[in-house]
Amino acid sequence: MVIFADKTQAQLIGLDWGSTSLRAMLIGASGAVLETRTSNQGASMLDGSTAAFAAALSALADDWHKAMPNLPLLACGMVGSKHGWREVPYLPCPATVIELAGAMQTVNWRDTQVRIVPGLQCETPEGVPDVMRGEETQALGALLANQSLRERSCIVMPGTHSKWARVSSGAVDGFATHMTGELFAVLRAHSVLGRLLPSAMTAAPDAFETGVLAALKNGDAGLSHQIFAVRTLGLTGRLIPAQLPDYLSGLLIGHELRSGLIWRERAGLAVAPILLIGESVLCQRYLSALALFGENAVQVLPNTAAVGLWRLAQAAQGVLG
Amino acid sequence: MVIFADKTQAQLIGLDWGSTSLRAMLIGASGAVLETRTSNQGASMLDGSTAAFAAALSALADDWHKAMPNLPLLACGMVGSKHGWREVPYLPCPATVIELAGAMQTVNWRDTQVRIVPGLQCETPEGVPDVMRGEETQALGALLANQSLRERSCIVMPGTHSKWARVSSGAVDGFATHMTGELFAVLRAHSVLGRLLPSAMTAAPDAFETGVLAALKNGDAGLSHQIFAVRTLGLTGRLIPAQLPDYLSGLLIGHELRSGLIWRERAGLAVAPILLIGESVLCQRYLSALALFGENAVQVLPNTAAVGLWRLAQAAQGVLG
Repeated sequence: MVIFADKTQAQLIGLDWGSTSLRAMLIGASGAVLETRTSNQGASMLDGSTAAFAAALSALADDWHKAMPNLPLLACGMVGSKHGWREVPYLPCPATVIELAGAMQTVNWRDTQVRIVPGLQCETPEGVPDVMRGEETQALGALLANQSLRERSCIVMPGTHSKWARVSSGAVDGFATHMTGELFAVLRAHSVLGRLLPSAMTAAPDAFETGVLAALKNGDAGLSHQIFAVRTLGLTGRLIPAQLPDYLSGLLIGHELRSGLIWRERAGLAVAPILLIGESVLCQRYLSALALFGENAVQVLPNTAAVGLWRLAQAAQGVLG
Repeated sequence: MVIFADKTQAQLIGLDWGSTSLRAMLIGASGAVLETRTSNQGASMLDGSTAAFAAALSALADDWHKAMPNLPLLACGMVGSKHGWREVPYLPCPATVIELAGAMQTVNWRDTQVRIVPGLQCETPEGVPDVMRGEETQALGALLANQSLRERSCIVMPGTHSKWARVSSGAVDGFATHMTGELFAVLRAHSVLGRLLPSAMTAAPDAFETGVLAALKNGDAGLSHQIFAVRTLGLTGRLIPAQLPDYLSGLLIGHELRSGLIWRERAGLAVAPILLIGESVLCQRYLSALALFGENAVQVLPNTAAVGLWRLAQAAQGVLG
């Protein structure tokens, strides 16, 4: 289905530029996405040269720029990392949309400039640093529509590196990363656990739930212990191969929730609403896992980077979003 | 230095045959090792054929067998797995040395036979199966010299897959696997954490201790969260690259101890002595980590497979070890 959006309504070109993919969006009022184009030209897929970033952008957005040369361009994500187009230093938490907008840095592209949003850095309660790039923009986007969420909320952004962020008085003031998605990928591809796993992933909701419940009820047995059951349940035939990936996924997500919900309580967010932001299928996994943990008041939003970029553009123009 | 042992004292040829290596030992009274030879012909390095296993054994033990054709041959480890020389079914826990000896199965080699020790299977307190192959023989070996340890002890065997085993009344009656060593290896080689790590490992005891303490004090923040600090401490320069592998090692071992010590308490072994068995450098890591957890009454033993194989040979001959 093609949606015929009125491109004359476009207010900016937004770039959600992660490690492995680039998503270019033509964005209208209030962050409405008029058109999206994607490529696999993520920041870590390029050779690191300025020319490579410029070419990747041209491949997706050249005609937009020619037709609408006055549209501002904003980019968030790993494009601002050390190995990105330009390194934009992390901003310390707490950080508001105005502070983020004020700390953007520019790169030249064709006859205009692209503004790159800084990432955020915080100090965890354990006394180590944590960082994000891109999720700050999604978090800001999620808060646009709802004043009470802006006052206090817990935002969970599942992914390769899941982020749990605390929003307080409109600012992102702390967060915690969980390497859940990456652990799943490396264990599947490179550990002994992968040997019994089928190459294709079949949905096995029962096995997923069993894994989540194992983490919930017996998580103090330890993640490095519990994941070995992926092998032994397979060896003994108690789970069939098609169930094993979802069992592992349930264990890993269950352990993330176990720690994440402790973090949330310590962050003073025990009664604050949870906002889940991200890819729909993954959010559904987290939603059903959260329900097993007794957390039913959860709101799910799709990727909110477009809205976040629009807010940052507004803030950069001195118009508070 | 060459040790001239009196080979006429040999009582058996013992094979500690794991996934990645084969260790052949000429074993004398009470499990004394008269000579050791090793190769990289582990069970997973071969093509799975009977001929390949036979050839790997011949390469190490042919002359021993020719000179002493009556010596029995015993093998433990992955050689008895589905992808080994012959699959020897796991024996359920609790299992004594006599039961293990009685469940050995044989393969033909030259004009004699090799007896393969079965692995063990148990049901964890969480209700999932756990398995070991090879460590049961080490555990038996560790107990030979000490009657009180045979009555009740907690045996920790660090490695790729660390095993915590409970011994009660001379039988191995339960255990738990932690994938600590494998997690370290795959995170180092295949995850984002590896990018900041130097290729060579330098000893950084302070960083190791910091990692252990982070797991001890803040482990409920979650392993998948805490390991991300390997990246952020590197990115922010708070640790130098040479410290990062040991910080990661400390975190992983610390999480294993955290869960392992809970397991030990639930297994009724809170006041039972801990026996650490394995490679010396690795045991030293565990020893110093255990001390940080307040566990100072720990005895360290080198690989005790030879003694275990000797006990099994005695038991097979109807001579109780």
